[in-house]
Amino acid sequence: MGSFTNRGGGTFADVENNAAAPFQPLNPQDVRAYLLKAVDFISDYYSNVESMPVLPNVKPGYLRDELMASSPTYSAPFDVTMKELRASVVPGMTHWASPNFFAFFPATNSAAAIAGDLIASAMNTVGFTWQAAPAATEMELLALDWLAQLLCLPATFAGTGGGGGGGGGVILGTTSEAMLVTLVTARDSALRRSGSVGVSGLHLLTVYASDQTHSTFFKACRIAGFDPTRIRSIPTGPETNYALDPAKLLQAMNADARSGLVPTYVCATVGTTSSNAVDPLGPVAEVAAKYSAWVHVDAAYAGSACICPEFRHHLDGVELVDSISVSPHKWLLTCLDCTCLYVRRAHRLSHSMETKPEYLSNDATDSGHATDLKDMQLGVGRRFRGLKLWMVMRTYGTAKIQEHIRSDVAMAEIFERLVRADNCFEVVVPRNFALVCFRIRARGAMTEEEADEANRVLMNNLNNTGKAYIAHTVVGHRFVLRFAVGSSLQEEKHVRSAWELIKKTTSEMFMYGEREHQKFQKHGT
Amino acid sequence: MGSFTNRGGGTFADVENNAAAPFQPLNPQDVRAYLLKAVDFISDYYSNVESMPVLPNVKPGYLRDELMASSPTYSAPFDVTMKELRASVVPGMTHWASPNFFAFFPATNSAAAIAGDLIASAMNTVGFTWQAAPAATEMELLALDWLAQLLCLPATFAGTGGGGGGGGGVILGTTSEAMLVTLVTARDSALRRSGSVGVSGLHLLTVYASDQTHSTFFKACRIAGFDPTRIRSIPTGPETNYALDPAKLLQAMNADARSGLVPTYVCATVGTTSSNAVDPLGPVAEVAAKYSAWVHVDAAYAGSACICPEFRHHLDGVELVDSISVSPHKWLLTCLDCTCLYVRRAHRLSHSMETKPEYLSNDATDSGHATDLKDMQLGVGRRFRGLKLWMVMRTYGTAKIQEHIRSDVAMAEIFERLVRADNCFEVVVPRNFALVCFRIRARGAMTEEEADEANRVLMNNLNNTGKAYIAHTVVGHRFVLRFAVGSSLQEEKHVRSAWELIKKTTSEMFMYGEREHQKFQKHGT
Repeated sequence: MGSFTNRGGGTFADVENNAAAPFQPLNPQDVRAYLLKAVDFISDYYSNVESMPVLPNVKPGYLRDELMASSPTYSAPFDVTMKELRASVVPGMTHWASPNFFAFFPATNSAAAIAGDLIASAMNTVGFTWQAAPAATEMELLALDWLAQLLCLPATFAGTGGGGGGGGGVILGTTSEAMLVTLVTARDSALRRSGSVGVSGLHLLTVYASDQTHSTFFKACRIAGFDPTRIRSIPTGPETNYALDPAKLLQAMNADARSGLVPTYVCATVGTTSSNAVDPLGPVAEVAAKYSAWVHVDAAYAGSACICPEFRHHLDGVELVDSISVSPHKWLLTCLDCTCLYVRRAHRLSHSMETKPEYLSNDATDSGHATDLKDMQLGVGRRFRGLKLWMVMRTYGTAKIQEHIRSDVAMAEIFERLVRADNCFEVVVPRNFALVCFRIRARGAMTEEEADEANRVLMNNLNNTGKAYIAHTVVGHRFVLRFAVGSSLQEEKHVRSAWELIKKTTSEMFMYGEREHQKFQKHGT
Repeated sequence: MGSFTNRGGGTFADVENNAAAPFQPLNPQDVRAYLLKAVDFISDYYSNVESMPVLPNVKPGYLRDELMASSPTYSAPFDVTMKELRASVVPGMTHWASPNFFAFFPATNSAAAIAGDLIASAMNTVGFTWQAAPAATEMELLALDWLAQLLCLPATFAGTGGGGGGGGGVILGTTSEAMLVTLVTARDSALRRSGSVGVSGLHLLTVYASDQTHSTFFKACRIAGFDPTRIRSIPTGPETNYALDPAKLLQAMNADARSGLVPTYVCATVGTTSSNAVDPLGPVAEVAAKYSAWVHVDAAYAGSACICPEFRHHLDGVELVDSISVSPHKWLLTCLDCTCLYVRRAHRLSHSMETKPEYLSNDATDSGHATDLKDMQLGVGRRFRGLKLWMVMRTYGTAKIQEHIRSDVAMAEIFERLVRADNCFEVVVPRNFALVCFRIRARGAMTEEEADEANRVLMNNLNNTGKAYIAHTVVGHRFVLRFAVGSSLQEEKHVRSAWELIKKTTSEMFMYGEREHQKFQKHGT
């Protein structure tokens, strides 16, 4: 964008109201003015978010009714934009930043991460090759190495990317992308290994994961072209706390191999979405090794906890796997999006992901000493995501980040104790991290099915108060409530308030149910 | 993250230095303080970036030598982080924000977009389902509709996503992702249509694009499992200005169909990376329709220009295609990442991309009235990307955004005229938008191969000055320099300076060459 006149040093008001002035979208005064308004908004937002309904009371289509149906022809002061944001957008948000948010997994965040992301947005580099963004590339690799050290990953995962035969890392947008690039890499390798002509043998390749694995894994398999009938979901049960049973995995692989199929990839999870189950990495990798199948570890959420020595054992066996992904945007204080993928023998990944168009060729690439991160991801373009992650680690230091994990886990322990102390409720699976899976217990004449329904009503009634937001899952065919601690503004008092609210909502439910029951008995049908 | 004591209202210094104080990563004072420091940094950066070398003089590995090799154990004041950013990161940046950046395509940006992205980072919603982020979902759909109106897309592309049978849109990270999700959708549909059992017929599916199509398309095809031998790169030449020739496309499709293959997908480009060629959408779509092949339009860069009536004809025929993607992070003043994908009959996309895990089920989804954007993308997690795009359109208005496009094109015209007026240079292909493809002309005894080498040396010498950064490509077997106008701080004076620098660098090159030549003649070997 440019102008055909010298910059006149026009004021903020000039630029917005004077149609004759050239349009300067990065006019320094505007940048500062708009950003300061955004900072004010954020300060207000964090100060007030606790009192806002966590789940908004809006209907699909509500925003379209409140805002203009078309882009305006003429510019408006930025205050108008901000006013509409406050008036129409904020009331329709589900507030992930609220200290009363206990749903899904928390999207933890920090001042350092937001500042880092802001600077990345302003610099707006596109780091597809090293030459296109040397510092962004190197910062990403450095941040990945720092995190690898915190996680005590074996040295085989560290390194500087595609070259050599060593390990390498890359920051991607989501776990799904980490699964997809490693699936494709394993697929290509299995096709070569099995003597397939092109992809003609693709329908023979099999992939494996426990039935607790995130649904996005099964979708990623389909995207990569695996045959839907070759995607194995290994059943789990309470006997392993819903973790993958290596014996069952071996059984499935053996059966497939006997049928002439080619076991290709296993996805193990450290901290499943439903119940935080931890698949045993070592035994799983040993089974997979019999068939040279790739093992990927999805440690999106719980991986972050493994920076604390007392949780590191959940990664035991990682030295035997092929790749692991951890998402600092979940539990490492780094705003979306930031998924760290580490790959042993990273050249296998770049073998499948590399492109060499003439328009991106350059001396640094030709030298073989530089890492071009486009060759370790699906696409070409990429944000400067390493900055925010580095800023978090550089600013807070390991000790405070560990404190953050421990504090969340301690709050979850408090909640777990409160649940266990109440005879109306039960904790459904052992708690591993900061997620408590619990439910109203089926007591007396109440069947498990009635308890399922009671838990569903409790969740809806609770969420409708706007004072807390919890989500659910189904584990072992039972409707289970998930209480995930860790939203970055959360303190112990919010956990305790949520528990009080759960108890109150439950007793109101049963009192109401009891009244209805009595009315029914009094008046007949 | 929480604390076990009440918030003590500790000061900034307390939090950083007092190990006993609970760690509050979103402490409001810290958030404000860190963000204000980031804003100051950005102000300084934009004020000074013009004088920084566009391409830095650093070697692979440089940053590792300057910064700590491991995460520090203890926290540091944020100023320390910012100091290292300024001292070590900035000098290693390739400055995409520099007004002297003419490489690749510009990553245009604006005050409104950065502010919007900042707010999104702070709110940090994860909008996989409508319920998880109603306002973010609705804002994304609204912003997509606004842009569709600016682009005069047919109503069949507008709508609210997966339901119904109408059109739908989604904001993705990159064009590559848009290609991949539509490739997978078309693949699944072609497999069903051709009676394939599972993916057994996958090796029969064929895809088509001109040889000027971005390399990421051919990679996306491989990721989606298409057989490498079934990916057709249709040759182009100067007779179509390197646009796809529908007759050649038809020929290739006919030949494949005669061999029992299944034409599945055509990628047309509006504004190719190398030379901004525009594939003729209508004729391409008519050819593809003979085989019910999906037509996707990659308008990543030049799509944005089509908000101006004088450029809209480049999208003629879009009413016949199945999908189109445009990346506002390229030329619509919106910082990375932001690629808008529009799909006719969006239910086909969600048919391939949908997941229905129990832990994400909710009443809004069950109602059928809400759009869950996870079902239109590869992964699950997603940033609140709609906000920045809406903020750009809401704040600046259509007229100013059109002015921005026209100003860039006008500056490119100036550059083009300067090149054409100089007998040493030639413009290689007709300019369509704000990219000028030019080169030192082979004159006198100079062969085209020698001219190729001269252009390569010119580019390297020019880029080594740090005063400008241009990139290259190969078109029609010739090494061609790409001069892409549009970095958001750029003005006419920067374009003129770059031209002067190009002329000066060229004449120094030839003078030096001439001196060496004379020395050689004087002294012999």
